[in-house]
Amino acid sequence: MVAARLIEYAEAGPEVRAVYDDIKRTRNVPDVNNFWKIIANHPPTLRRTWESLKETMAPGALDPLTKEMLYLAVSAAHGCEYCIASHTAAARKRGMTDEMLGELLAVVGMASETNRLVTGWRVPLEEAFR
Amino acid sequence: MVAARLIEYAEAGPEVRAVYDDIKRTRNVPDVNNFWKIIANHPPTLRRTWESLKETMAPGALDPLTKEMLYLAVSAAHGCEYCIASHTAAARKRGMTDEMLGELLAVVGMASETNRLVTGWRVPLEEAFR
Amino acid sequence: MVAARLIEYAEAGPEVRAVYDDIKRTRNVPDVNNFWKIIANHPPTLRRTWESLKETMAPGALDPLTKEMLYLAVSAAHGCEYCIASHTAAARKRGMTDEMLGELLAVVGMASETNRLVTGWRVPLEEAFR
Amino acid sequence: MVAARLIEYAEAGPEVRAVYDDIKRTRNVPDVNNFWKIIANHPPTLRRTWESLKETMAPGALDPLTKEMLYLAVSAAHGCEYCIASHTAAARKRGMTDEMLGELLAVVGMASETNRLVTGWRVPLEEAFR
Amino acid sequence: MVAARLIEYAEAGPEVRAVYDDIKRTRNVPDVNNFWKIIANHPPTLRRTWESLKETMAPGALDPLTKEMLYLAVSAAHGCEYCIASHTAAARKRGMTDEMLGELLAVVGMASETNRLVTGWRVPLEEAFR
Amino acid sequence: MVAARLIEYAEAGPEVRAVYDDIKRTRNVPDVNNFWKIIANHPPTLRRTWESLKETMAPGALDPLTKEMLYLAVSAAHGCEYCIASHTAAARKRGMTDEMLGELLAVVGMASETNRLVTGWRVPLEEAFR
Repeated sequence: MVAARLIEYAEAGPEVRAVYDDIKRTRNVPDVNNFWKIIANHPPTLRRTWESLKETMAPGALDPLTKEMLYLAVSAAHGCEYCIASHTAAARKRGMTDEMLGELLAVVGMASETNRLVTGWRVPLEEAFR
Repeated sequence: MVAARLIEYAEAGPEVRAVYDDIKRTRNVPDVNNFWKIIANHPPTLRRTWESLKETMAPGALDPLTKEMLYLAVSAAHGCEYCIASHTAAARKRGMTDEMLGELLAVVGMASETNRLVTGWRVPLEEAFR
Repeated sequence: MVAARLIEYAEAGPEVRAVYDDIKRTRNVPDVNNFWKIIANHPPTLRRTWESLKETMAPGALDPLTKEMLYLAVSAAHGCEYCIASHTAAARKRGMTDEMLGELLAVVGMASETNRLVTGWRVPLEEAFR
Repeated sequence: MVAARLIEYAEAGPEVRAVYDDIKRTRNVPDVNNFWKIIANHPPTLRRTWESLKETMAPGALDPLTKEMLYLAVSAAHGCEYCIASHTAAARKRGMTDEMLGELLAVVGMASETNRLVTGWRVPLEEAFR
Repeated sequence: MVAARLIEYAEAGPEVRAVYDDIKRTRNVPDVNNFWKIIANHPPTLRRTWESLKETMAPGALDPLTKEMLYLAVSAAHGCEYCIASHTAAARKRGMTDEMLGELLAVVGMASETNRLVTGWRVPLEEAFR
Repeated sequence: MVAARLIEYAEAGPEVRAVYDDIKRTRNVPDVNNFWKIIANHPPTLRRTWESLKETMAPGALDPLTKEMLYLAVSAAHGCEYCIASHTAAARKRGMTDEMLGELLAVVGMASETNRLVTGWRVPLEEAFR
């Protein structure tokens, strides 16, 4: 067996349990996602990633729904299936409708197309953008 | 010389001029960006890309600023320098503040980090996300 | 059926068998991985890829474990699931511990995050790095 | 200074000179591109890369122009500016017209858009494609 | 359930049916692929993507087989499994042989290798390519 | 002007100065790189990124040179020029020789090639790797 094991709460050490408890409390969920159960194989990554994510995704100048949609857009650009699935679910929970998802993915698609056109055609940067 | 030439309005044919005119009218700008002047080397691409972009970026379930920010996030994920520069400018014109840009790029960074952690650790998709 | 077939030893021609034999001898394994059985559908690619890989991964200024870990890091960055699985196994065989894997993926994640921050913020290259 | 130096013919050792000579003869050019002069900093990479490239790009079931265009398409997808520039030049030398370049980049753009739509929408693979 | 549903013809509205009918007529197929059935969840994306794709993939300066092979090369570079499967099938239908597929993927592989060598070694662009 | 400004020490607020001081102390350098001076435009990103990076790159089961080389490999895979330049310099400072750099980039190149071959050929994952 090569892939890492899921670390469930019952078998987790205190450092891991403390993070799981904070995730469940912050997100008001009964259990943590597989993402956390896998990176718990390396407790420093679990703790650091959760702290960074909690801070980054908190309400600020951008609201949590916009942040989740940006997350989803980047995950689609990177082709990370699990990330797309989990952040689609998270964005829907925060209010993303079918219509909003449709428009979001249309923008991701158009940006991907024009990103490659710009690169392939070697568009020179104009002074105004420096 | 290998790179494509910028097609200026004065030397453009009627098909290209019609697109330039529509871009300038729609965006209320005196001239079009280098992106358009380069892809005008292939007029069908110019016309089709502008039509698709105009439709995709129009106000809908998502407002134009959110769409510009999604565009910028995808461009940062793809590493397209020109695209990042031009869509940062476009998003600022639509109201993106320094603080919003800072949070946007923080989300792009975190998404990139966790996208790779998910892939590298081979996180299994849970039933709830299927 | 669209996907390519696995070419097993018993049905392989002499050119393919010679490569399989060399892989098994070099790596001291009873059979070759699916990767080789698939690219054997195009024998010149099988031979050329094996020769390049054997030369590139041989001990040199870098030891084989470090090379396997670099391979794994690149595969995680590119999101190639099969490659991640097979090179995680190969690196473990050469001595990569759980702790080393945890740190390796943490570095991959941080590099991915800062790569996108650099690009998104358009950090200018300093003279010292030219 | 951090970046690698260009290794010119006059200062190169016999292993590097032999590769340069073969490139110049095969391609009928007076000097090799910067790509070769830089990777000559690691002679085994220079030799191995040239041998693989010479074999891969030789006429076969696909003609050399089609191969150059595929190379260019991949380079545009990966956003490698130098590669786009040098393979645009190489494809033009083999007969790629302005119109062909325009259509090639249009296909690259459309493929990039639909690749992300497929991933973002999580399109399930149908039986017929397994 | 998080993933989008397949929209079958029987349940589709008139805008979606019109696109499905045009795809079936243009390609002479009894049913549309899952790609279309999924993006039909956002009818404007379905219509716009089909129109762009139909125009882009039509015979022009490049023949349809070359265009399908370029599409496949980009999809392999982006790591989109569904896209690789469906465009491998489409290219085979237009005449791509086993040998051509083998050479195509060999070029994709070599381009990927040299793209990263160019970037990693920071090869400077020569004047001739500007 | 669209690109962000470099925040120099003299004009920085106390939160930014504290991070700059810690970077200079930890790395024993007279000034911080442009990367830090740019992300200082969003102080929470500066602080969080530095803390994560300091923890991730500290000696552990992997030594600092190996970590820098992994960082460089990922940056080459992502095509981030600034990151490649700054982490090549950092790895050299920690002892990476010309020969090691040559082998590192050869592995990055080979991994990139086989990553795309695996994906393009759709190699099925064997049971042993699950």
